[in-house]
Amino acid sequence: MTGVVDGVSEEAAPDSVTPGRAGRGLFITFEGGDGSGKTTQSGLLAAALSDRGRSVLHTREPGGTEIGVTIRELVLHHRGEIDARAEALLYAADRAQHIATVVRPALAAGTVVLQDRYLDSSVAYQGMGRGLGRDRIRSLSLWAADGLLPDLTVLLDLSVEDGRARLDRARTRYDRLESEAAEFHERVRRVYLDSAEAEPERFLVVDAARPPEDIASAVLERVLQLVGS
Amino acid sequence: MTGVVDGVSEEAAPDSVTPGRAGRGLFITFEGGDGSGKTTQSGLLAAALSDRGRSVLHTREPGGTEIGVTIRELVLHHRGEIDARAEALLYAADRAQHIATVVRPALAAGTVVLQDRYLDSSVAYQGMGRGLGRDRIRSLSLWAADGLLPDLTVLLDLSVEDGRARLDRARTRYDRLESEAAEFHERVRRVYLDSAEAEPERFLVVDAARPPEDIASAVLERVLQLVGS
Repeated sequence: MTGVVDGVSEEAAPDSVTPGRAGRGLFITFEGGDGSGKTTQSGLLAAALSDRGRSVLHTREPGGTEIGVTIRELVLHHRGEIDARAEALLYAADRAQHIATVVRPALAAGTVVLQDRYLDSSVAYQGMGRGLGRDRIRSLSLWAADGLLPDLTVLLDLSVEDGRARLDRARTRYDRLESEAAEFHERVRRVYLDSAEAEPERFLVVDAARPPEDIASAVLERVLQLVGS
Repeated sequence: MTGVVDGVSEEAAPDSVTPGRAGRGLFITFEGGDGSGKTTQSGLLAAALSDRGRSVLHTREPGGTEIGVTIRELVLHHRGEIDARAEALLYAADRAQHIATVVRPALAAGTVVLQDRYLDSSVAYQGMGRGLGRDRIRSLSLWAADGLLPDLTVLLDLSVEDGRARLDRARTRYDRLESEAAEFHERVRRVYLDSAEAEPERFLVVDAARPPEDIASAVLERVLQLVGS
């Protein structure tokens, strides 16, 4: 397999993109509840693609920009009450800045962008979980991102019990979202699955209870199909 | 004239509100370009209403909450580039938090809320000035505020030349918005006037070049009509 670094290789054509994506990279998002293994899987995929000579950017929301770091701090660790709409708008602002100044330039340079959490997290956590309306949050997020949808979204689906058991083993301190009740997480999981059902071509749903290396193989297989190798 | 403090007076009925606003305060916003005298006029009105025994809250956007202060700092003094959508969303987040946690509780307690800049600033500065679309920004702002429109909006209309001359006399350092070109300010002024034309009942347009005490009298007269005295 020929490598493409920074999307400027002379050999870009066969390896880089599927029809319609010529001249740009690939935007892959990882979604799922807390403890579902997003960071592990996106990290494994980043390593596998780098090994194959691809230029990879591994990023996340919230917090992928200087402004985003401030927003993340505000949303997760503010002491007082944050209005639900204010929270949704802060996430959307982080998204706008992150997509415009980090993700789009990388994609234009032919880079594969791997991102932990994106549009579908907003729909699940703010739109459904906090009762603001899925459609409204989806359109707010898409407006913020000027319409950018992922080429692939990996949904790491895990029962709420398994997710919390993993977190309990890993750490003892929860941030605000992690401290919400189990029922909230169950509703979030349902919205994720609904979203995947509505857009089967964009989503790859994997059982997050499977061994990490098995999941990584399934994800890499799908990604290699996308890059046309 | 009988006074109402904190909206709990037994004598509230004749003095407090127009029909349809029973049991709540009055929401008055001040709009206009930089240097048009918003702070002066809202301050004079606050004093006049306090003198008459009304409970008054004088606030502003951005920056009226703890979160808002951080947002204001980010938007006005961030060193790098802020994406136009990110900026609009940050202002909307500040608005959501401010309206939900400061303005609505005050109105519910019968307080008169005087606010420097609100919805119409967003429409003028982000919607038109930065090319994001007036309707889109208006609906974003109204969503953030869960539909709250002012009972009265005082538009201090001033030619761009007069506005900048005032600022030049008052200070030498401009923040980001104040440093934009004169053409930008002229377009902002046009949007303000268009908004006032579209909602004549909500707006009181005053010539900001008139003496401050004359303006204050005109504003107070209109406000006293609103409170039904």
